[in-house]
Amino acid sequence: MTTGEPVTFYDSTLRDGAQTQGVDFSVADKQALAASLNRMGVDYIEGGWPGANPTDDAFFADRPRYSHARLIAFGMTRRPGRSAANDPALAGLINAGAQGVCMVGKTWDFHVDVALGIDRQENIDLIGDSVAHAAAHTEEAMFDAEHFFDGYKNNPAFALACVEAAYEAGARWIVLCDTNGGTLPEEVERIVGEVSARIPGRQLGIHCHDDTGNAVANSLAAVRAGARQVQGTLNGLGERCGNANLISCMATLALKTDFKTNLTDAQLRELTGVSRELDERLNRAPSQGLPYVGESAFAHKGGLHVSAVQRDPRTYEHIDPAQVGNRRHIVVSDQAGRANVLARFHEIGLELPDDDPQVTKLVETVKAREFEGYAYDGAAASFELLARRALGQVPDYFGLNRFRVMDDRRWNARGELVTESEATVTTTVRGEEVMTVATGNGPVNALDLALRKALLGVYPQLADMRLTDYKVRILTPQAGSGAVTRVMIESADRQGRHWCTVGVSANIVDASFNALHDGITWKLYHEGAPAIAAAAE
Amino acid sequence: MTTGEPVTFYDSTLRDGAQTQGVDFSVADKQALAASLNRMGVDYIEGGWPGANPTDDAFFADRPRYSHARLIAFGMTRRPGRSAANDPALAGLINAGAQGVCMVGKTWDFHVDVALGIDRQENIDLIGDSVAHAAAHTEEAMFDAEHFFDGYKNNPAFALACVEAAYEAGARWIVLCDTNGGTLPEEVERIVGEVSARIPGRQLGIHCHDDTGNAVANSLAAVRAGARQVQGTLNGLGERCGNANLISCMATLALKTDFKTNLTDAQLRELTGVSRELDERLNRAPSQGLPYVGESAFAHKGGLHVSAVQRDPRTYEHIDPAQVGNRRHIVVSDQAGRANVLARFHEIGLELPDDDPQVTKLVETVKAREFEGYAYDGAAASFELLARRALGQVPDYFGLNRFRVMDDRRWNARGELVTESEATVTTTVRGEEVMTVATGNGPVNALDLALRKALLGVYPQLADMRLTDYKVRILTPQAGSGAVTRVMIESADRQGRHWCTVGVSANIVDASFNALHDGITWKLYHEGAPAIAAAAE
Repeated sequence: MTTGEPVTFYDSTLRDGAQTQGVDFSVADKQALAASLNRMGVDYIEGGWPGANPTDDAFFADRPRYSHARLIAFGMTRRPGRSAANDPALAGLINAGAQGVCMVGKTWDFHVDVALGIDRQENIDLIGDSVAHAAAHTEEAMFDAEHFFDGYKNNPAFALACVEAAYEAGARWIVLCDTNGGTLPEEVERIVGEVSARIPGRQLGIHCHDDTGNAVANSLAAVRAGARQVQGTLNGLGERCGNANLISCMATLALKTDFKTNLTDAQLRELTGVSRELDERLNRAPSQGLPYVGESAFAHKGGLHVSAVQRDPRTYEHIDPAQVGNRRHIVVSDQAGRANVLARFHEIGLELPDDDPQVTKLVETVKAREFEGYAYDGAAASFELLARRALGQVPDYFGLNRFRVMDDRRWNARGELVTESEATVTTTVRGEEVMTVATGNGPVNALDLALRKALLGVYPQLADMRLTDYKVRILTPQAGSGAVTRVMIESADRQGRHWCTVGVSANIVDASFNALHDGITWKLYHEGAPAIAAAAE
Repeated sequence: MTTGEPVTFYDSTLRDGAQTQGVDFSVADKQALAASLNRMGVDYIEGGWPGANPTDDAFFADRPRYSHARLIAFGMTRRPGRSAANDPALAGLINAGAQGVCMVGKTWDFHVDVALGIDRQENIDLIGDSVAHAAAHTEEAMFDAEHFFDGYKNNPAFALACVEAAYEAGARWIVLCDTNGGTLPEEVERIVGEVSARIPGRQLGIHCHDDTGNAVANSLAAVRAGARQVQGTLNGLGERCGNANLISCMATLALKTDFKTNLTDAQLRELTGVSRELDERLNRAPSQGLPYVGESAFAHKGGLHVSAVQRDPRTYEHIDPAQVGNRRHIVVSDQAGRANVLARFHEIGLELPDDDPQVTKLVETVKAREFEGYAYDGAAASFELLARRALGQVPDYFGLNRFRVMDDRRWNARGELVTESEATVTTTVRGEEVMTVATGNGPVNALDLALRKALLGVYPQLADMRLTDYKVRILTPQAGSGAVTRVMIESADRQGRHWCTVGVSANIVDASFNALHDGITWKLYHEGAPAIAAAAE
C-alpha cells in the first residue's frame, strides 16, 4: 500500500485557519507565520484569498519567497456564465503572483442544485475550464473538491466526474475535502481508495475538519488509502471545531508510520516552537493538551509514573519529546524541577555544577515567581537575567527613583478629542539624579522614551533598540481587584537580535516598566556595558 | 461485524480526569457531575479511587444511587506477596460500597520487568486472584489492562495471558487501555479484533488517550472490531493530552453509525449542557471548538457559507445542532459578507430588509473597522452597538469632556517602591458638568471607578456591573504608521449576563476607555435606561 512517493504537507492556517471565530491575522502575523511554516518543512503555504479582504491583498502584494515552501493563493473556480479567461476574480487569483493557485469548486450534487442553482454539467465544465486556465498561467494549479465525501456518498458518479474534470484539465493536486467534517475514518479510507482507482494517489490530497473529533484520523486514513498531500492547520485552527491539526499529522506520519515524508529531524524539532508561536500571535493561552507539542503532552505527576519515567522514559512516553522540540515536564518532584532548571541554564549558556547550592535557591525562586504569574518560557531574556542576577553577574545599570505617567484625553483647540501620554522619570545615573520627560502615543511608549532620554547619554548603544511587540494578559480575572497583569515585551536591535522580557504586577504600567527594565538591562549586559550608575534601589 | 449488543459508555472524568494538572474536584463537584453524567445516559460512572485521597473517600462515604448509571470504584489489583483476601487496599476498594469495582493491572512485559520488578507468572496470578475475589464480593468486577496495546505489540502471548486471567476469573469487562496514547487506529482495530477471538467483544472495553490526536478514532476503531464498552471523559479531560472525549464518542456512535446504544434523544440533548457544566465547575473558559458541543461547533463565519446555511442547513452542518443540545451561531468578521451581517442582526433582534441600503453601509463599516484593528467576532456587544448606533437607536447616556489618568511609582514612607493610579474624569450628566476622581490598582481600574462615581447617581443599575476580563493586543496592521492597541473587555452583572466589548486606539488607555464606554452603554441600553445626559460630544 505504501509507495516511494513522499507525503507532502499543505498548511492552510493563514486562509482556512483565519475563518476561526476570534482569529484576526494582521499582515505582520501572516508574514511571520509563513516564515515559520517554511522552517518547519511545510511544502505548501496557503497564504490567503486575494481579493477577499484588505489583509490578504496586502500580504500578497508584498509576498516573499521561501527556501522550501511554495506560496499558494486560494480562490474559486470561474463563475457560471463566463469564460475562465473573462472572469475577473480568477484573473485576480492568477495575478496574485503566488507560485501556485488552489481553486475550490463544488462536487456535491445537492450543493450544485441548492446553493449554486446551476446545471450539473455546467458545474463540471467550469471546474475543467478554470483548472485548465490556471494550469496554463501559473506554475501549479490545484483543485479543492468541496464537500467531496458528502457528494460521493450521495452521488458517486457526479462527484467523480467533477474531480476527473480537474484531473484531466491538468490539476497537479485534486484535494478531497470533508468540508462539513462529518465523515468517519473508515468511510474516508474506503472512498479515497475508490477514487485512487481513477486518479493516481500521488495527485490526491485530503482536507479534513474536526467536527467529530476525527480530523487527524481521517487524514491518516486517506494517506493509508493512497493520498499523498495532507492539508491542515497549526494547532488545528479553523472554523467550527477546526481543521486537521497539521502538526499532529506531520509528527505521526514522520515518527510513527512507514510512510515517506521529506521532513528532517531538525524540522520536526521546530513543531513545538511554531505551535506556541501561533498562540502567542493570537494572544491566547496555548492549549496545554495538544498532542506532541502541548506543555502537558509529556507532563508526569508524582509517584509511580515519575520514578518509572526516570528509570525508562518509554514506560509512560509514546515518543521522546525532544523529537518534536518539546520537553518532559515533571510536576511535583523537586529533583526533576532541579534537572529542568539546569537544562534551561544550559540552553542559555550558563553551566553550573549539578550539586551547586545556588541551583537549589534558583529553583525555589523560579517556582515562586512562576506561581506569582511570571512565565519564563516566552521570556527567555528575563529568565536569563533572573539567573545571572542570582549569580551576581548583572550590575545595576541605572537606579529608578520615581516615575509618573499621565494620560490625558481632552478637546484640543481644533475641537478634536485627543489623548496624550506624558511620562516623567527620575533616575540615578553616574551617581546623579536625572529627571527626564517625554510624551508618547501611550503610557508605555512615553515611559520608554523618557527612560531612554535619561540613559542615552551614558549608554549610546540603546539608540538602536526598539520595542517590537507588547502583550498584556490578565491572569486572575476571577479575583476582581486582586487581578494580576502580565506584560510581555519583545525588543529588537539593528543587529537583528530579538529578545523577550516579562513583567508582572497588579498595575499594568508597573508591569510594563519591569519588562522594559529587563529589556534594557539585557541589551546592556550583552554589549558588555560598564555599570556607571549608582543604584538608588 | 455489528451485533445486537449495545455499546455501553463508561465515564472516568471523576477519576482519570482528576489526574489533569490543575484539576481539583470537590465532593460537591463530584456529586453534581455524577448526577449530570447519569442524566446524559452514561452507563458507568467511575467515581474515584477510595483510599487515595480524602475527597474520594468522602464521595464514596456519601455515595448516591442513580436512576440509570452504575457507580464504580477504581483501584489496583492486589500487591505482590499477599493474598487477595489479605490485601487492605483491595478490601478498601470492595468495601467502598460502589455497585462495581474496576481494578488496574499490568499487561506489558516490559513494565512487569522494569516498573514492578516481579515474576511474569506472578503478575498473571495476581490479576486472576484479585478479579476472582472482587467478583465474589461485589456486583460487578472489571479489569483495566494497563498498557495493553504496547504490551501486545511487544509480547502478544503475555498480554493475552494477562487479560485471559481476568476473563476466566469472572471479570464482567476487560478494558484494553492505550495508556501512553501512542497507538494508531488501524493498530487498535487489528489488535482488538485479535483479542475478540479469545474474549467475547461484549465483554471488551476500550480506554484511549489523545497523545496523537486519535483517542476518539481509536475508540471507534475498537467498537468496529467488536468492543462494547467505551471509556472516556467529559471534554476529553485527562493527564497529558487527555482521555478520549466521551461526548464525541457518544454522539458519533449514536448519530452517525449503525451500532446500537441505549441513548435516547433526550439524553443526547443533554450533551452540550453537561460539557459546559464541567468547565463551569473547573472555572475555566469552555473550549469553543469541541466537536458537537463547543460554542463554535456550528458557527459560520465565511460569507458564502452563511447564505448557503440559511437556504438549507445541511449544506454546511453535519448534524442538526439541536440533536446534541447545541445551536447555530453566525459570526461577524473581516471574512463576512452581507448575509453574515444580516443574520447577525437577526440574532440580536434587529430586522432589516435584505435590500436596505443601510446594510451595505454597515458591511463596509465593519470591514473598515476590522482592518483598523477592531475584532467584532469576539465582541458581540460592540457589534450590536455599532449597528444600533448606525440606525440611530442608541442614545448618548453621558458625555465625556475629559479624563486624566496618572500612574505614579515612588518610594513610600516605609521605604517601599509602590505604584498608584489615579483617574480624574469630567463628564456631562443631566446637563451638568461632573468631575470625579478615584484611585485604582491600575489606570483602567482607576478610570472605571471614577466613571462609575460620576454615573451611579443617575444610573444606579451600574452598581451590579463589573469587569471580568481584560485583554490587550498590539497590532501593527500596516508597516510604517504607529502601533495600534486593541483592548477587549468582558463585563458581567448579577443577572448572570456576560458581554464583550472592544476598543482600538494608538493609546492603550484610550482604547480601554472606548471598550469601557461600550460596556456601560450596552448595559444601560438593555435595561432601557433613559438618556438623561446632554452629550458634550
